[in-house]
Amino acid sequence: MSKNLTKRSEDYSKWYNELVVKADLAENSGVRGCMVIKPYGYAIWEKMQAQLDKMFKETGHENAYFPLFVPKSMFEAEEKNAEGFAKECAIVTHYRLKNDENNKGKLIVDPNAKLEEELIVRPTSEAIIWPTYKKWISSYRDLPLLINQWANVVRWEMRTRLFLRTAEFLWQEGHTAHATKQEALEEAQQMHQVYTDFVQDFMAIPVVKGAKTETERFAGADETYTIEALMQDGKALQAGTSHFLGQSFAKAFDVKFANNEGKLEYVWGTSWGVSTRLMGALIMTHSDDNGLVLPPNLAPIQVVIVPIHKTDEQLDEISAQVNELVKNLRKNGISVKYDSRTNLKPGFKFNEYELKGVPIRLAIGPKDLENGTYELARRDNLTKEVVAKEGIEEYIKNLLETIQSDLYTKALNFRNEHITEVNTWDEFVDVLENKTGFILAHWDGTPETEEKIKDLTKATIRCIPLDQKEEEGVCILTGKPSNKRVLFAKAY
Amino acid sequence: MSKNLTKRSEDYSKWYNELVVKADLAENSGVRGCMVIKPYGYAIWEKMQAQLDKMFKETGHENAYFPLFVPKSMFEAEEKNAEGFAKECAIVTHYRLKNDENNKGKLIVDPNAKLEEELIVRPTSEAIIWPTYKKWISSYRDLPLLINQWANVVRWEMRTRLFLRTAEFLWQEGHTAHATKQEALEEAQQMHQVYTDFVQDFMAIPVVKGAKTETERFAGADETYTIEALMQDGKALQAGTSHFLGQSFAKAFDVKFANNEGKLEYVWGTSWGVSTRLMGALIMTHSDDNGLVLPPNLAPIQVVIVPIHKTDEQLDEISAQVNELVKNLRKNGISVKYDSRTNLKPGFKFNEYELKGVPIRLAIGPKDLENGTYELARRDNLTKEVVAKEGIEEYIKNLLETIQSDLYTKALNFRNEHITEVNTWDEFVDVLENKTGFILAHWDGTPETEEKIKDLTKATIRCIPLDQKEEEGVCILTGKPSNKRVLFAKAY
Repeated sequence: MSKNLTKRSEDYSKWYNELVVKADLAENSGVRGCMVIKPYGYAIWEKMQAQLDKMFKETGHENAYFPLFVPKSMFEAEEKNAEGFAKECAIVTHYRLKNDENNKGKLIVDPNAKLEEELIVRPTSEAIIWPTYKKWISSYRDLPLLINQWANVVRWEMRTRLFLRTAEFLWQEGHTAHATKQEALEEAQQMHQVYTDFVQDFMAIPVVKGAKTETERFAGADETYTIEALMQDGKALQAGTSHFLGQSFAKAFDVKFANNEGKLEYVWGTSWGVSTRLMGALIMTHSDDNGLVLPPNLAPIQVVIVPIHKTDEQLDEISAQVNELVKNLRKNGISVKYDSRTNLKPGFKFNEYELKGVPIRLAIGPKDLENGTYELARRDNLTKEVVAKEGIEEYIKNLLETIQSDLYTKALNFRNEHITEVNTWDEFVDVLENKTGFILAHWDGTPETEEKIKDLTKATIRCIPLDQKEEEGVCILTGKPSNKRVLFAKAY
Repeated sequence: MSKNLTKRSEDYSKWYNELVVKADLAENSGVRGCMVIKPYGYAIWEKMQAQLDKMFKETGHENAYFPLFVPKSMFEAEEKNAEGFAKECAIVTHYRLKNDENNKGKLIVDPNAKLEEELIVRPTSEAIIWPTYKKWISSYRDLPLLINQWANVVRWEMRTRLFLRTAEFLWQEGHTAHATKQEALEEAQQMHQVYTDFVQDFMAIPVVKGAKTETERFAGADETYTIEALMQDGKALQAGTSHFLGQSFAKAFDVKFANNEGKLEYVWGTSWGVSTRLMGALIMTHSDDNGLVLPPNLAPIQVVIVPIHKTDEQLDEISAQVNELVKNLRKNGISVKYDSRTNLKPGFKFNEYELKGVPIRLAIGPKDLENGTYELARRDNLTKEVVAKEGIEEYIKNLLETIQSDLYTKALNFRNEHITEVNTWDEFVDVLENKTGFILAHWDGTPETEEKIKDLTKATIRCIPLDQKEEEGVCILTGKPSNKRVLFAKAY
């Protein structure tokens, strides 16, 4: 069945770009590198937000909102962070336009409205949040401070792709402050686990949990925890990160608290975030040549019902029965759409809902009415079956759970088949070029070797997996000793 | 009971500013005119968002997300809109910082990273959304397009006040496109009614519904509907607006559709929005000299329970009973907090929850344990009573509804007492200076008179009330004939 969608095997990248647009998820805007998230795509993002927000609140976090702009001087305060983000930021320098006297109807920047200090559109909010925390924290009783923000951020990317890398994107950023190093570390690890649970259980995407190497850490962090997912083209995608900031921001912004002995100490910090990039991971993990495949947990429409009829009487009869089913499904908390548009053929509708990844499609025609059945099609494995209308609500409820878990298993199997252990440089290069996927290999632990491997192959160290056992070996590039394999891949 | 809060009668403006900060709603940030919305304030905003979002979806709208930036050329396309907003906008001119070679650790704007076209941080999104709609609309089948966006916007205000007027604020903006003038008008009116219902029923704030005069209309609109609320100091606050845009944006951005006869026509548009400004309306309508007063619908904590005890044993006994109550209240969908902190005195806690506007406070001591009672204090009218623990869940549930409706009635009575009909200029000036509040008066219908009245008194025409009957009269300033009274007030 063709939706004029390029096949993945022909051009994976083109397939992705076409799918995002044709499935009504997002499109490029008239602003370089900025996307429009369309209603259908945004409805999926809203489901992610709702679940994450619930999980954040269950772990004791509250939402707040901080300014979009960071004055340059605040931005400079944490040196590494500034270095890491200064190269790609939008800078507000003026606050007024005026009429162009030489060109009617046109506006020019008013040179008299230059800001004394430039404002950076936040690429991340540590530099605006920590000066606020300084005001809020004075005693150990003010700690821990557990705050999350839902916001837009801007990083001036030169090469952008819908959802995966855009100049503006939507995300959440958690920022916490603690009295002890241990507590901050545990917070960073806890949120790492929250992301893992969310991405695996809710998005049906298996991940490898690990720590970033020093080179790949968040600018200003002592430790960055990451979850790494594998896309169908064998490339990795960083799906979420949680940073243990140590005392770097506390020192940069002078945030101290009096401990229970009255002594002043710097607080310990974390930050953690996931973004609309997860939409890219979702699409590239589950979808196929027919279009989007959505896990039931994230599907704005979980069940679509299409009537097949020749006469108006048939349609009336079908509708009477379907309306009852729709009511019952909704009572069960299932989101369902009955598409009774008469100007479109059933085949057209089938294509449309396949393209949009609706997990279950029911069709009902005159024969089904007679037999008391529906034709049920699963989007994930494209199978069809005839199902009795008696008890179909319960059947669908269970099937949605089955689909959710089948999608995870399928992705997990794919991922496991694409983790290869290699011991030599030749094997390494061979897997990268032919099999693709994750590679577990020994590395000598130096940034120099990491950099060299990247230059030679474009593969990066995705993470030092947390569950990886100690094992003697030698670095694939330098032959120097190593006691743990790390996870390599080419990445988005 | 003093919270070191300035009294309203002493200095209303100071009272407001202090209350916003002391009740942990918001505070000024290090960025000129931008606020930090603190967790407690944000939790109230989240409740507003959730309810509004539900109402928008029930009326057929979907959420989407459009870019933060508007290229200058798009901004210029609708002339009136550009004129109206160009005078107060943040302008991005560069996209990179670099190290200052003369000043280690400092960053400067990289002059080589100047944008070819400046980007305006959206003050409102018509100019970025309508070019997108051009891509989405080709036939009458694509209409109506009913979209809402939750977003931050920036207007470079010179004088700012927390929630009421800030450079950056949070809002929702609906943007719809329709095939006929009638349908677009009805949409604008429908959303006007949605705002009315939300503000009156949910926020317990009575409003006057009306249309703006030409002068006060949204830049680019053919008609602006508004809801106007009255604050305790007798000043008006515009709480929400819904605009019938006619075809102005469709023409500016060339958005046409083929009607069912295949003819091309310009579409008709609306836009409508409410913002974090509503937080200001909420505070200034209900609160008193003891602090915030929250309608139960918007209270993050609806019931707080404070134990009064001398010994640990007493606390244990109290806690055992209270934990049961907490469970039962939560089962009833009531948000409740049990504050058993032992390092703070009950009186301190009472003050804190009064300051934060928690609608119902329960206290329980050893005597109550004996008698099977709680002491219940209402925040809205500061009354106390002793209530039997048997059936207290049902009692509280009903009382929350009573408080919600009492708050509305109280505000409505105040508002009605502060609407004065005047027929002469002297009366007009007298009411403005002494009684304050809304004034219903005749006006000759010209922008010149409107402007002159504003210059003379600072009072503006808040709206032409929709329910105002026709009535012969003469303009209070010019003596020219008029057939309808309009609503004047000094305003925020």
